[in-house]
Amino acid sequence: MPVSPIKMADAIRVLSMDAVHKAKSGHQGMPMGMADVATVLWSKFLKFDASKPDWADRDRFVLSAGHGSMLLYSLLHLTGFKAVTMKEIENFRQWGSLTPGHPEVHHTPGVECTTGPLGQGLATAVGMAMAEAHLASRFGSELVDHRTWVIAGDGCLMEGVSHEAISIAGRLKLAKLTVLFDDNNTTIDGVATIAETGDQVARFKAAGWAVKVVDGHDHGKIAAALRWATKQDRPTMIACKTLISKGAGPKEGDPHSHGYTLFDNEIAASRVAMGWDAQPFTVPDDIAKAWKSVGRRGARVRKAWEAGLKGSAHSAEFNRAVSGALPTGAFEAVDAHIAKMAETKPANATRVHSGAALDHLIPAIPEMIGGSADLTGSNNTFVKGMQPLDAPDYAGRYVHYGVREFGMAAAMNGMALHGGVIPYSGTFLAFADYSRAAIRLGALMGAKVIHVMTHDSIGLGEDGPTHQPVEHVASLRAIPNLLVFRPADAVEAAECWKLALQQTSTPSVMTLSRQKTAGVRGSGSENLSAKGAYELLAAEGGAAAVTIFATGTEVAVAVAARDILQGQGKPTRVVSVPCWELFDQQPAAYRQAVIGTAPKRIAVEAGIRQGWERFIGEDGGFVGMTGFGASAPFERLYKEFGITAEAVVAAAG
Amino acid sequence: MPVSPIKMADAIRVLSMDAVHKAKSGHQGMPMGMADVATVLWSKFLKFDASKPDWADRDRFVLSAGHGSMLLYSLLHLTGFKAVTMKEIENFRQWGSLTPGHPEVHHTPGVECTTGPLGQGLATAVGMAMAEAHLASRFGSELVDHRTWVIAGDGCLMEGVSHEAISIAGRLKLAKLTVLFDDNNTTIDGVATIAETGDQVARFKAAGWAVKVVDGHDHGKIAAALRWATKQDRPTMIACKTLISKGAGPKEGDPHSHGYTLFDNEIAASRVAMGWDAQPFTVPDDIAKAWKSVGRRGARVRKAWEAGLKGSAHSAEFNRAVSGALPTGAFEAVDAHIAKMAETKPANATRVHSGAALDHLIPAIPEMIGGSADLTGSNNTFVKGMQPLDAPDYAGRYVHYGVREFGMAAAMNGMALHGGVIPYSGTFLAFADYSRAAIRLGALMGAKVIHVMTHDSIGLGEDGPTHQPVEHVASLRAIPNLLVFRPADAVEAAECWKLALQQTSTPSVMTLSRQKTAGVRGSGSENLSAKGAYELLAAEGGAAAVTIFATGTEVAVAVAARDILQGQGKPTRVVSVPCWELFDQQPAAYRQAVIGTAPKRIAVEAGIRQGWERFIGEDGGFVGMTGFGASAPFERLYKEFGITAEAVVAAAG
Repeated sequence: MPVSPIKMADAIRVLSMDAVHKAKSGHQGMPMGMADVATVLWSKFLKFDASKPDWADRDRFVLSAGHGSMLLYSLLHLTGFKAVTMKEIENFRQWGSLTPGHPEVHHTPGVECTTGPLGQGLATAVGMAMAEAHLASRFGSELVDHRTWVIAGDGCLMEGVSHEAISIAGRLKLAKLTVLFDDNNTTIDGVATIAETGDQVARFKAAGWAVKVVDGHDHGKIAAALRWATKQDRPTMIACKTLISKGAGPKEGDPHSHGYTLFDNEIAASRVAMGWDAQPFTVPDDIAKAWKSVGRRGARVRKAWEAGLKGSAHSAEFNRAVSGALPTGAFEAVDAHIAKMAETKPANATRVHSGAALDHLIPAIPEMIGGSADLTGSNNTFVKGMQPLDAPDYAGRYVHYGVREFGMAAAMNGMALHGGVIPYSGTFLAFADYSRAAIRLGALMGAKVIHVMTHDSIGLGEDGPTHQPVEHVASLRAIPNLLVFRPADAVEAAECWKLALQQTSTPSVMTLSRQKTAGVRGSGSENLSAKGAYELLAAEGGAAAVTIFATGTEVAVAVAARDILQGQGKPTRVVSVPCWELFDQQPAAYRQAVIGTAPKRIAVEAGIRQGWERFIGEDGGFVGMTGFGASAPFERLYKEFGITAEAVVAAAG
Repeated sequence: MPVSPIKMADAIRVLSMDAVHKAKSGHQGMPMGMADVATVLWSKFLKFDASKPDWADRDRFVLSAGHGSMLLYSLLHLTGFKAVTMKEIENFRQWGSLTPGHPEVHHTPGVECTTGPLGQGLATAVGMAMAEAHLASRFGSELVDHRTWVIAGDGCLMEGVSHEAISIAGRLKLAKLTVLFDDNNTTIDGVATIAETGDQVARFKAAGWAVKVVDGHDHGKIAAALRWATKQDRPTMIACKTLISKGAGPKEGDPHSHGYTLFDNEIAASRVAMGWDAQPFTVPDDIAKAWKSVGRRGARVRKAWEAGLKGSAHSAEFNRAVSGALPTGAFEAVDAHIAKMAETKPANATRVHSGAALDHLIPAIPEMIGGSADLTGSNNTFVKGMQPLDAPDYAGRYVHYGVREFGMAAAMNGMALHGGVIPYSGTFLAFADYSRAAIRLGALMGAKVIHVMTHDSIGLGEDGPTHQPVEHVASLRAIPNLLVFRPADAVEAAECWKLALQQTSTPSVMTLSRQKTAGVRGSGSENLSAKGAYELLAAEGGAAAVTIFATGTEVAVAVAARDILQGQGKPTRVVSVPCWELFDQQPAAYRQAVIGTAPKRIAVEAGIRQGWERFIGEDGGFVGMTGFGASAPFERLYKEFGITAEAVVAAAG
């Protein structure tokens, strides 16, 4: 007799309950409530092979309600993802385990996305579905034909990013994306209706999704709904009516059973209610076997796919793109461009220089997918000839994200996690605040994405303080595992693009100016930006009396100040600092040499001082901003806020 | 003959077109497109008196699509807000003018809210409507009975924060809130449909709003729709079908006429099309008169209201609350609490200490309005006896914001701008990234709000790196005009609350621990936190060899390290640093004394080093984090990441 699917779901419920109980921490409510839906999805629909977690054409499963991590860990363990042993389940939320509090990609095999910050799993999944659609168009459905499934809770759908995500998905008609909404009317503070009376089904429909409501504990109806989802011409949302902590005896359906709250006697009562005799962290053989066979279900399809890939004309290029290796000669054109820029040293906005670098990179690296949050012309992210990535043929490489910085950044994370594409996109630097949570999550996940952020200081001028980043460069530098580039001219802009593209597990931010700035780099054969900071101009006429450190458009200010100081007989060095993080990675001797021994050290950057002491010491001079900007033409602002060569000279004493 | 309202609208159109043209910067598209709607609203519905911009019972008008600032400046000038002269209109976007690129509250009389970062004006307006509803319940509709009107564009409604905002408003049935959607199917990148196919009307309806579509150039129909809006029992959204740059001759309806793009000949053609003969920056007398009379329309009502206030029993309390002055004796109870805490020095989580301070503040300061983004129990923001602020009687003082950190922070800004209330609310510190854009805008606007952010380090333990702030304290410190408090114990927590409440135009963040920490402050009569940093423990047995700087839960670590160092014969000071920003405001002599002259300076904070050099110098010791955290019980994490007394001792050499 086959094992009852309810029993299989109970295995998830009991593991989740016991693991949370042992850890005295975590959430059993969602895993127990969604165990039935997850069981039907994984056992009948999800395309995967537990023995091959990185199979490129697997379905993606994203647990957007990441606090329900035990749902995912239970599934991974039960279906036979080798690393996720019962020992790991027992070590839920402990140091060094594969079962941290929230799912972490690249930490636990089978976890596709780090989730927990609500709403972002859904938004990231949208990017995965975009990557799938694009690659299916590029390589054909023989090689790329998989779905993206998301479990999202009330909290996910309250977050604003869910609006941006479902709008993008609806606009792009991402038919292979399905959201399973854990519709249990519960959030931490109680029944969801204390804060939410919106109609989620109507809302998704308004965003262009196909929608359905289903009893989330009726396996037959769940299966029918999932089947329906696979046949729609647009993204699908299934509102699964569930009871939180389904099966948890007296606590079933109780909003307060969301997190770690079950007492010993309630756990015992739950076991009785489910008819579950097995000891904690053991699964009865028949149920374990049934689950293991689910984990092997996709092996045959996977092997056939592998054979197909081997025989495909696209094989080499597909493998390369998925591996993350850049094409041979990817940088040939941009290197020639750099050499030319070093010769001509053109004055222009660094956003324009960035666009010029893209002109040479986009044709050479077909996996680059660009876009902008409705500022295409301002961000210089569009290269002539690019087509919109859009339904019905998703082969285009430029995404019109709309005014959705957060959804855009999260979607880029999803594309990078999916693999096979390198996403970049633009907005204004001030609006990094809108997307910051996704920038951080991308850094935590090691997602190779490139955030182009133009209008990077008061230099944007008339738009005024709401649009003028002052603290943004500093606050982005604060995020671990994120490269923050602020190139000074055409050479550095192209160098920084190369560096961003050479990363494997680190996202980058390119901060770029709206306003014109002089070219400063006269040599382009070595990528000096790779060192994070380097001596651009040596002191002349003796040991350096002054070192000026600068980034971006202020390097030209530093150079002008040096001219004056040298004229006054003060030997002065200029150090260009396009990337703090790369400088930190240099050997101590190099760093010391760049910092130098000049008695006077000054930094100039049209932002706040925070952190510059590492270059200039406690008492060094700083020429920059101390508060918000103002609305006026940029030349006036630089003068009024005192970011000038004269101010640098004055700081030199 | 009365002046045609179309001509009145044309005055807005021409002023906007000419000001943008002169500045060679800005946006005429929206002001021209929405001139008709704005004319009907201001001339027939908006309750205001141009001679009294700060009349407490005025309607609030928020231009969420802030780039259309010339719409608002035109209205302010035309209706007779004295400061907004024609000279100011001519100086649009110039240094020192009252007409900056985007509207700035407290800069230009009549501007209610700084807008430009899209979506936030709408979300801020929701807070204004909440404050109105609450104060109407508290003081009666004789004193408080006004509406909040918002103009929002496609971009505003694409932003995720719009979802949070309209969900909150729909849930709370804020019937006096009306959104006028500039439904022109245009964003910067072109027709909005390249990125948006959602049905906004259906979407607002799903969120519980009453909705209507209207021809945005038909004054009669606009008036009927606005009248309809005033009669609904829920918030209202009117989709105004408009042509961008209406009236701009050949560019009318052209998506590329959004910003500064009109050529001289097109401006001339527009004048011809509108039949407008007047020179730039002049308005024909009859039209100017008609507008001036609009500006006086509310004077009678305002005077009657003032008389009513004078005679009201609520007069004194209403005036006090609106003035921002705290009640007499507001701190009596909390001061007694501080004295007791200094005596008993209880060990507990600082979030618990914060909650204890609130226990004494909430009864004493009736204008404090609390809330949480669905983490009430975790944030300790709720004080026993508080009632939810909710329909139909909004007298309650606790808001269930739902999982909407951004919408919450923006709504708090709106409440503070409205006046009469002091909003505070909670979430986890890691999710400051979600609300950061509103925290910044609040700082720029000088909005007195208090962001309670608990779970302020790896000390939150098992939830892991997604929930563990590492860089957040540093990145919040980077925002100008924002006080970032990290209190060490019960005394400091209460002191910091007092300081936050004593601000007039600066928002505060209270970062608070989940985990227990020892009490360190044994004296409570002087508010030492007010100095930002102070010597908690002096060196004993000689001049200080070591100074340890610490914040929050790490002050106890510093104290333990000092015990060891003193035991080793190294005289050691401990400096507690609850607030960098307040320390910066102290006289240089005090700052130097606190920094001291110990040869060894060490900082300990469970976050990144960025900026600590100002305390410890270039080569000082730092005990903290260098990357993301991990999931495990907190004691283990502190040990594994080396944030211990032993590590501090080791750093002391």
